[in-house]
Amino acid sequence: MKEKRWAGRFERPTDPEIERFTASVAIDKELWREDIDASIAHAEMLAAQGIIPAKDGAEIVSGLTTVAKEIAAGDFNWRDELEDVHGNIEGRLVELIGPEVAGRLHTARSRNDQVVTDLRLWLKRRLPELEGSIRGLQQAMIEQAEGHIETLVPGYTHLQRAQPVSLAHHLLAHFEMLERDRARLRDALTRLDELPLGSGALAGVPYPVDREAVADALGFSRVSANSIDAVSDRDFVVEVEAAAAVCMMHLSRLAEEIVLWTSSEFAFARLDDAYATGSSIMPQKKNPDVAELIRGRTGVVYGHLMSSLTMLKGLPLSYNRDLQEDKAGLFATVATLESSLAAMTGLLSTLTFDSERMGAAAADASLLATDLADHLARKGLPFAEAHAVVGKLVRLAENRGGSLVDLSLEDLQGASPLFTADALRLTAKHSVEARTSEGGTAFERVHEALARARKLVTDD
Amino acid sequence: MKEKRWAGRFERPTDPEIERFTASVAIDKELWREDIDASIAHAEMLAAQGIIPAKDGAEIVSGLTTVAKEIAAGDFNWRDELEDVHGNIEGRLVELIGPEVAGRLHTARSRNDQVVTDLRLWLKRRLPELEGSIRGLQQAMIEQAEGHIETLVPGYTHLQRAQPVSLAHHLLAHFEMLERDRARLRDALTRLDELPLGSGALAGVPYPVDREAVADALGFSRVSANSIDAVSDRDFVVEVEAAAAVCMMHLSRLAEEIVLWTSSEFAFARLDDAYATGSSIMPQKKNPDVAELIRGRTGVVYGHLMSSLTMLKGLPLSYNRDLQEDKAGLFATVATLESSLAAMTGLLSTLTFDSERMGAAAADASLLATDLADHLARKGLPFAEAHAVVGKLVRLAENRGGSLVDLSLEDLQGASPLFTADALRLTAKHSVEARTSEGGTAFERVHEALARARKLVTDD
Amino acid sequence: MKEKRWAGRFERPTDPEIERFTASVAIDKELWREDIDASIAHAEMLAAQGIIPAKDGAEIVSGLTTVAKEIAAGDFNWRDELEDVHGNIEGRLVELIGPEVAGRLHTARSRNDQVVTDLRLWLKRRLPELEGSIRGLQQAMIEQAEGHIETLVPGYTHLQRAQPVSLAHHLLAHFEMLERDRARLRDALTRLDELPLGSGALAGVPYPVDREAVADALGFSRVSANSIDAVSDRDFVVEVEAAAAVCMMHLSRLAEEIVLWTSSEFAFARLDDAYATGSSIMPQKKNPDVAELIRGRTGVVYGHLMSSLTMLKGLPLSYNRDLQEDKAGLFATVATLESSLAAMTGLLSTLTFDSERMGAAAADASLLATDLADHLARKGLPFAEAHAVVGKLVRLAENRGGSLVDLSLEDLQGASPLFTADALRLTAKHSVEARTSEGGTAFERVHEALARARKLVTDD
Amino acid sequence: MKEKRWAGRFERPTDPEIERFTASVAIDKELWREDIDASIAHAEMLAAQGIIPAKDGAEIVSGLTTVAKEIAAGDFNWRDELEDVHGNIEGRLVELIGPEVAGRLHTARSRNDQVVTDLRLWLKRRLPELEGSIRGLQQAMIEQAEGHIETLVPGYTHLQRAQPVSLAHHLLAHFEMLERDRARLRDALTRLDELPLGSGALAGVPYPVDREAVADALGFSRVSANSIDAVSDRDFVVEVEAAAAVCMMHLSRLAEEIVLWTSSEFAFARLDDAYATGSSIMPQKKNPDVAELIRGRTGVVYGHLMSSLTMLKGLPLSYNRDLQEDKAGLFATVATLESSLAAMTGLLSTLTFDSERMGAAAADASLLATDLADHLARKGLPFAEAHAVVGKLVRLAENRGGSLVDLSLEDLQGASPLFTADALRLTAKHSVEARTSEGGTAFERVHEALARARKLVTDD
Repeated sequence: MKEKRWAGRFERPTDPEIERFTASVAIDKELWREDIDASIAHAEMLAAQGIIPAKDGAEIVSGLTTVAKEIAAGDFNWRDELEDVHGNIEGRLVELIGPEVAGRLHTARSRNDQVVTDLRLWLKRRLPELEGSIRGLQQAMIEQAEGHIETLVPGYTHLQRAQPVSLAHHLLAHFEMLERDRARLRDALTRLDELPLGSGALAGVPYPVDREAVADALGFSRVSANSIDAVSDRDFVVEVEAAAAVCMMHLSRLAEEIVLWTSSEFAFARLDDAYATGSSIMPQKKNPDVAELIRGRTGVVYGHLMSSLTMLKGLPLSYNRDLQEDKAGLFATVATLESSLAAMTGLLSTLTFDSERMGAAAADASLLATDLADHLARKGLPFAEAHAVVGKLVRLAENRGGSLVDLSLEDLQGASPLFTADALRLTAKHSVEARTSEGGTAFERVHEALARARKLVTDD
Repeated sequence: MKEKRWAGRFERPTDPEIERFTASVAIDKELWREDIDASIAHAEMLAAQGIIPAKDGAEIVSGLTTVAKEIAAGDFNWRDELEDVHGNIEGRLVELIGPEVAGRLHTARSRNDQVVTDLRLWLKRRLPELEGSIRGLQQAMIEQAEGHIETLVPGYTHLQRAQPVSLAHHLLAHFEMLERDRARLRDALTRLDELPLGSGALAGVPYPVDREAVADALGFSRVSANSIDAVSDRDFVVEVEAAAAVCMMHLSRLAEEIVLWTSSEFAFARLDDAYATGSSIMPQKKNPDVAELIRGRTGVVYGHLMSSLTMLKGLPLSYNRDLQEDKAGLFATVATLESSLAAMTGLLSTLTFDSERMGAAAADASLLATDLADHLARKGLPFAEAHAVVGKLVRLAENRGGSLVDLSLEDLQGASPLFTADALRLTAKHSVEARTSEGGTAFERVHEALARARKLVTDD
Repeated sequence: MKEKRWAGRFERPTDPEIERFTASVAIDKELWREDIDASIAHAEMLAAQGIIPAKDGAEIVSGLTTVAKEIAAGDFNWRDELEDVHGNIEGRLVELIGPEVAGRLHTARSRNDQVVTDLRLWLKRRLPELEGSIRGLQQAMIEQAEGHIETLVPGYTHLQRAQPVSLAHHLLAHFEMLERDRARLRDALTRLDELPLGSGALAGVPYPVDREAVADALGFSRVSANSIDAVSDRDFVVEVEAAAAVCMMHLSRLAEEIVLWTSSEFAFARLDDAYATGSSIMPQKKNPDVAELIRGRTGVVYGHLMSSLTMLKGLPLSYNRDLQEDKAGLFATVATLESSLAAMTGLLSTLTFDSERMGAAAADASLLATDLADHLARKGLPFAEAHAVVGKLVRLAENRGGSLVDLSLEDLQGASPLFTADALRLTAKHSVEARTSEGGTAFERVHEALARARKLVTDD
Repeated sequence: MKEKRWAGRFERPTDPEIERFTASVAIDKELWREDIDASIAHAEMLAAQGIIPAKDGAEIVSGLTTVAKEIAAGDFNWRDELEDVHGNIEGRLVELIGPEVAGRLHTARSRNDQVVTDLRLWLKRRLPELEGSIRGLQQAMIEQAEGHIETLVPGYTHLQRAQPVSLAHHLLAHFEMLERDRARLRDALTRLDELPLGSGALAGVPYPVDREAVADALGFSRVSANSIDAVSDRDFVVEVEAAAAVCMMHLSRLAEEIVLWTSSEFAFARLDDAYATGSSIMPQKKNPDVAELIRGRTGVVYGHLMSSLTMLKGLPLSYNRDLQEDKAGLFATVATLESSLAAMTGLLSTLTFDSERMGAAAADASLLATDLADHLARKGLPFAEAHAVVGKLVRLAENRGGSLVDLSLEDLQGASPLFTADALRLTAKHSVEARTSEGGTAFERVHEALARARKLVTDD
């Protein structure tokens, strides 16, 4: 098969440089299995509907099965001059079963509906895998959290120590983010679960095709409702990329924390040797490269999202060749997210938290300032005033070169007569145990949250 | 109220330039109604739970109601030095009911859970409006489509005429896109429909709050599950912005088509005077500015999405002031989408299609090439071969300076003996009517699609 | 002036909602001074060339001068229905000098060349101001650096302590970034310094205009070379936004460091009260909000860049209304960069570094590992092997629960017989002083660098 | 070489999955030649300075030369487990000359300054190539323009026909854009032309290196001024990506026009068969895929810019592993721009303009409306009034179902008595010839512009 399928109308062949410029097989061969599966389903339907002879249908299916085996075995010669994954598979099919029979596969089908069918099918298979990887990371979080329910750590706002919290509670905040990521991927999957095949080039096809049968064979929930939209639409690419961008953003936040925690200054956690790297010049270094790469690759995933949105902006209907540029970014996005999830799972699972260092930091007396204000508020002082009183005490302690814990009851009562002796007995643990509001950090609440989390990752 | 609420701990006041730099009231006053509603719900719950005296609760509610009236009446003095919408409303509340009672409103609440509650509540109210506006545009599409079921127009791929289609079918392709937009907004709404209030600064609150009651009062479906996540999360902002970006992208594609259709070269449609603008120098001009602005503003909405994603990248938990930058872009996004939908609805409703010009273009004989190939395929020639035969005929006709329609039966049969006389009788209308596959452009299919579309926009 | 200038060709007026949708005066009134200056230069040239009567030219100039005074005094009624800054100024001019004379101002000019002239002129005035603000921040860096040449601080890679450096050297790294920012802005300025006026709507004008005279009057270095490009081009907007994005990125890196330095864990620096903010709930908090906002607004500036690029993508020549969307983002970008530079200048100038804490951290013995390896390398061991030797010593010390400094000469010589006693006397200060390569952290180099820096900011 | 260079400090090896996750050799082997050249320059300098023995220096150089030959011959076994291009080349060097001598190459150098040296050197070599490709496209524009100085075509604003212009003038608008692109690349090159080597890990190196000698050997104009900045800075990547984004945007605008021009509706130009593609289903199709792909890939390049900016946002100094993600996007950007320029050059060179169709469109009488208004303005009517008069005439002609050219002198004079008979003799050619302002479309101006253009592309 030397010629392009569409060569008939042309007097001269494509410029070889342009052939390379337009070729997409290096990228879209990722779709080979979906392309073959969809072609088989199409051929079987054509035969079942009597649109092509049953015998020809069987030959096509058998030929495609052979092609699939060759590709799976790494025994396939991908050629740029055949343009794309479809051209390559067809070219080989022609070699195997001859142009006459192979040529019937094109009945009632266009590249436009074929490629988007492959891509949707590919995502139908990849998204559950991604969701599984997210669940894997969630499980790692649960496991770490289970060992650290009563490990106290400063909770931060503005990277300033704010209030003591349970480390498990902190880890479960990340769990929640991932839970939303899974939901977003599921929504995306539901929306993209639609068969475009049968839409032809753009207008539908003039054959008695059975689109529902093809959808069933490939596992699609429904067929697309409008043929022009079916070949023009790449919403599903953008939606998956947007969901992936948010998930990478979540990973980048955890990655940032791991970088902080493993710094000498925080020293809240130690990296496992298997998940750290060294320096070519500085012998003492043990670097959190994995976390940094995840954080850095967040930008890469954002970039692919922006690419797709830009590519689609202002495109008239229906299919335009610009749409070819949907795939490289999507494939890279899925691969980056998948490997980042796996790497983060290993990194987090093997991280050793230093409960002692964390506890010492959480015991920083200034973290009890809110509790002191709440102490006064519970005795009737409006919270705003209580806040002002404690603010002054903080300043007083600082000016003396100490912290809140160094103040005497007289100091406290000098600021407000409402202070009673129990104010002096406040600790980080009291502070945590007091926060029993739903979703709060009190240990009992964290136990509940863990139980809920375990259920969420095992239920589906 | 001259001082910041947190001034107690500080020895010197904020630099005035920095006050301006950090102030957000010019932006976040958009949230005033939500802020007051949430404060009222919070105060009522505090009183109901006995956390503050019932009398104080009632005074706070009454004071806030007064503030709401003043703002609604445009009778409110917004002040930068009070930082944000919350500070401004509190400042006025203090003036109205005194610092003692007003100060109790801060019990069991932080700015961190307050601001994100306001923002979610604001979106809970805006998203259904947006969805309504999308539905409005869908209705305009249905109405235009109803008048143009049998109006033929060339369907395009690569902006080359490809196959004739029903204009209604083309318009319904846009309808489908918007249908997905609505679904995405509904999914986003479901996911963001969660009350953060009661999460405190980040750790929960040490008071017997009833979060469910507050959720009920404000119409939230559930309360947030983790206090740290609750104050750190801005996924919902990104998700709405991503959904808006896709919707704007859809509008940009329709806008591009309107620009094309109203050009002299296409001349498929005419703008209503009320939806067009002229030129300061060229007296003949009637420009599709509205479509161009929608297309241009697509970039603006993309930009806001990218801003939010960038802002969130690598932020450690929990609240960081960077998060303040979520609002300007979100408000602008919602406003731009809302006004673009409204403008497009008017633009499309008042557009006059020139059925005659469209029909003439659709009658372009080259558009029947696929039908000629299908003619051969139905007579047993493999489609790939049939395609090649017709490709050569196209070239033959072009070389003679004519088009497919100028070829004789002899010409056809010279290329393939399978051609029969009915091949000469092919028309654009036949072509359209033959495409009866589900989702195809055949008139009967378009009638079905319209019925389905009408149902979709009225059902919810 | 009730009617649009282009109303003649239209039978019905613009829909009021569309009038609001297309109006840009809320944004582009920022250009009022440039619009008036350019109109005055245009009118004077028209009169000088005899294209309009001298008397009319003088009346126009006088009228425009009055308008300028009114606007400057805040005594001007901006009206949406007059569309944009140009329409508003013209409308008032007509009121002041009558339609007959005012109408002559439109000779040999179109909105298309007018608006882009205003925008370029605006940037010609803003960019030197921005550059001045960058220089201001550079000066603050120099001042802080001057006081900290011999203050040692750990240099970080991967946020792990790497090697001790002079704090001044670290601050001068930021100085270098800003130096490039200034250069980029200057390049952008040179490139945009071109007068488009005289390009008409797109094709040039059929009048004997003197474009060079207008350029001279407005301070432009040259006139644009192609009229179609002149009205279509917005490169200069993108270029300024890209330069601003890089500069904000630089500020975000310094902001991140300030957030780290002022955390309890680092505690390398203290914020001035005037440049910090507190918390509504936690009385002890002193937050680096200014740094966080700068970091967060980096995303906003990135977003505007992406908006402009997206807006321009795929636009055919020449002017399209999409281009209107260039201004809001550009103005916001310049304002954000300007205020961020000013805020960072104040923040950095008032920051108090804790030399003692920094010095203690820099004395961390592990930071001397490279020096130990260099010690061996200088004695003839290939550096790669020396690195391996010291790596093992680091592990040995860690396993004993200590650090490199706790090892004895025997320990060292056990690892390599090349070690001599002076290896035990290595200190952070020695380490710094040894790095005398050009651009290195040795104090003498830092002194040179400071001298160079002072020269750079005063020379221009 | 089985072990990482930094393995000494670690007890256990890296997890193999993490090895893959962190490996960059698949990407950064693109830098092999620069890596070897820089290592040779470094080794020669070390030997010249007596830092390593001269004999060792010579052996290293000879070994590296062998490695270069092997790689150039495709005879090199790239291994993921050696991490990156540097590790692979070193690994082979060790095999060739033994660890002892090879190990001395690491003296006074770190990966941090090495990698950024390679990358800058790579760009120093690529940017002039890119500039050459831009010049190639500019030459193609000049050639097309030379044949079409007097070919008239409608100039468009808002994609509405506006005024007739010379096709050459239109093509030269694109020339101007590319001229700015070249200037931006040159500015970027000037700024990045700086040797970082000698900055060590971040602090400089404690050896008497001669950085100027290395800079000279590699062709760098200067050495970096601050070692911390030198290893942290990736501005130059962003700057090149931003310049490339603008250049791709320019190409996308031309691509959009080619798509329009080759549509049936415009039919202003025909694609050469060698630069067009067909359809698998529609035999008549001849699609402008090359133009569409260029337009689509614009989004891809934008995405890489956004990736880099995001990656750098908020990174503390100095080197962080996130920076590794700078390369894939940069390499893809340069390759995409390079191939797009080449493809566009071929596409444009082989495009056949249909002067007749263009001329007929330019003869559209409505395009003379501005000229009619100028006719009146020259007779003393203020332009604004003249515009209104002609606007009414346009409406009059339209209402009669004709165009301006169908109006009689009586019609004209009915609208304004100032009209004289020569108004009836206006043609598109007169219109073009009248626009003699600098940069205008008058043929004489276009001749000048072409002469200038030829000079610009040959001068440098």
